[in-house]
Amino acid sequence: MKLISYLHDAAPHWGCVTGDGIVDLGRRLPGIASVAALLEGGEAAMAQARAAAEGAASDHALADVQVALPIARPRRIFCIGVNYANRNAEYKDGSELPKYPSLFMRVSESFVGHGQPLLQPLESKQLDYEGEIAIVIGRRARRVSTEAALTCIAGLTCMNEGTIRDWVHHAKFNVTQGKNFNASGAIGPWIATADEFPQGYGGLRVQTRVNGETRQDDTTASLMFDFAYLIHYLSTFTTLEPGDIIATGTPTGAGIRFEPPRFLLPGDVVEIEVEGVGVLRNVVQAEEALA
Amino acid sequence: MKLISYLHDAAPHWGCVTGDGIVDLGRRLPGIASVAALLEGGEAAMAQARAAAEGAASDHALADVQVALPIARPRRIFCIGVNYANRNAEYKDGSELPKYPSLFMRVSESFVGHGQPLLQPLESKQLDYEGEIAIVIGRRARRVSTEAALTCIAGLTCMNEGTIRDWVHHAKFNVTQGKNFNASGAIGPWIATADEFPQGYGGLRVQTRVNGETRQDDTTASLMFDFAYLIHYLSTFTTLEPGDIIATGTPTGAGIRFEPPRFLLPGDVVEIEVEGVGVLRNVVQAEEALA
Repeated sequence: MKLISYLHDAAPHWGCVTGDGIVDLGRRLPGIASVAALLEGGEAAMAQARAAAEGAASDHALADVQVALPIARPRRIFCIGVNYANRNAEYKDGSELPKYPSLFMRVSESFVGHGQPLLQPLESKQLDYEGEIAIVIGRRARRVSTEAALTCIAGLTCMNEGTIRDWVHHAKFNVTQGKNFNASGAIGPWIATADEFPQGYGGLRVQTRVNGETRQDDTTASLMFDFAYLIHYLSTFTTLEPGDIIATGTPTGAGIRFEPPRFLLPGDVVEIEVEGVGVLRNVVQAEEALA
Repeated sequence: MKLISYLHDAAPHWGCVTGDGIVDLGRRLPGIASVAALLEGGEAAMAQARAAAEGAASDHALADVQVALPIARPRRIFCIGVNYANRNAEYKDGSELPKYPSLFMRVSESFVGHGQPLLQPLESKQLDYEGEIAIVIGRRARRVSTEAALTCIAGLTCMNEGTIRDWVHHAKFNVTQGKNFNASGAIGPWIATADEFPQGYGGLRVQTRVNGETRQDDTTASLMFDFAYLIHYLSTFTTLEPGDIIATGTPTGAGIRFEPPRFLLPGDVVEIEVEGVGVLRNVVQAEEALA
């Protein structure tokens, strides 16, 4: 299933995508108020959703709704830095491959949904894209083994882990401020549930296009820390909860890596495509134009 | 007022502390369900709370309740790294004073309330204390000036920004994993509201004691980035919301800075005292003893 959150006539709904239509599952399952509640409900709730979706006619055309963040306000968004092996080389700092992942957090307010404007803030012209595959957790887990880790995945979605490059370098340690500008990134358009990946997560392709030009293109075969390890590692220190998001890192080819850098400009169309999920598409808007 | 969240007969309550008693404000103000709701209600709700507290007899003895996190599940906890000027020197890396603060985030699950055990995890013997003053935000704010910033403070509380030292160094950038072990830090015991600091926030003392021995002792006069600047800076990239917490950094004297390091051991009593707030007290417990 492809789980979607959306606005129709300004009211929040959730459902699943079928072709170019949407089945309104919230209407059919009044006990499940949102995708977050569905995930908290675990396998029983997911079975209800599948049964309700089975053979149902679509209620809306995708084109007639406003897509929202797949989970309205994710409580915890963990992001992995430098996870594609060739990207560690791209840093040209002579460092060995890392033993453990680099981790930072983003607040939900730093993301918009599919189709909503990405904001170039007043303070910087260095808005950059980072196309990523994001894991959505579906099961409570602490100290889960790598063998069992993949069973914690509810599904995958696309993320533009948009970054304000100059603000990333404000501090000696940590990248928080450059990664958390309001509306600087995007998540969506929906969550493709785990059963849509019967071949596993080992060779999934992620691509970023800016105005149709491919800038990033790699597969999870290049990951230094694969999905199972990331879930295992995070669950060592924190109890993962349904609805938590783990952004798994971005391939080479971000705008900062070009000479000269190619940052995003107002009007640019950024697409993140993840195999088995779909395409997350946003247009850049200058915040000063809104003032 | 000193706003407290607590359990009595296993049920959650909130109120204010008067001497060694508590006035149950939640019972008197049924429209305000929690300290989080009080803060979201802004000045009108705070005025109701003051009126209800005025002259009220206490409902419980402090000793008869279990103190909880002052805000049950803060959505966003921003932490400032290396903010006491002499602490930058303590790093001995020859670096200049920083131009901007270093920032990272913690999840609420990494904190316990006053009186609850701090956990030394299975994975490390390097649990360390960091005594800090934490700002609790009381007003929605984006791009607030330093002149107006202090009006966003609802109050202050104490934080033990407990850290797993070896895990802080797992990654090339970022400290997330060493700062987010479940129950590795503490917040509380309550929030002293802004009106309790008529002299401002310029020379507030923060101290850390382990088994009665003073390990950290400094005042906000030593801050490189004062409260007004921190609020201004954070609000540049994110909209601050009531209930957000900003931990303002720790003085010199953490356990890692001793030779040899003096990490916390099971049974150690850690107290963080902030002038005008009170004392946050927790005892260290080895997680392996709970298994």
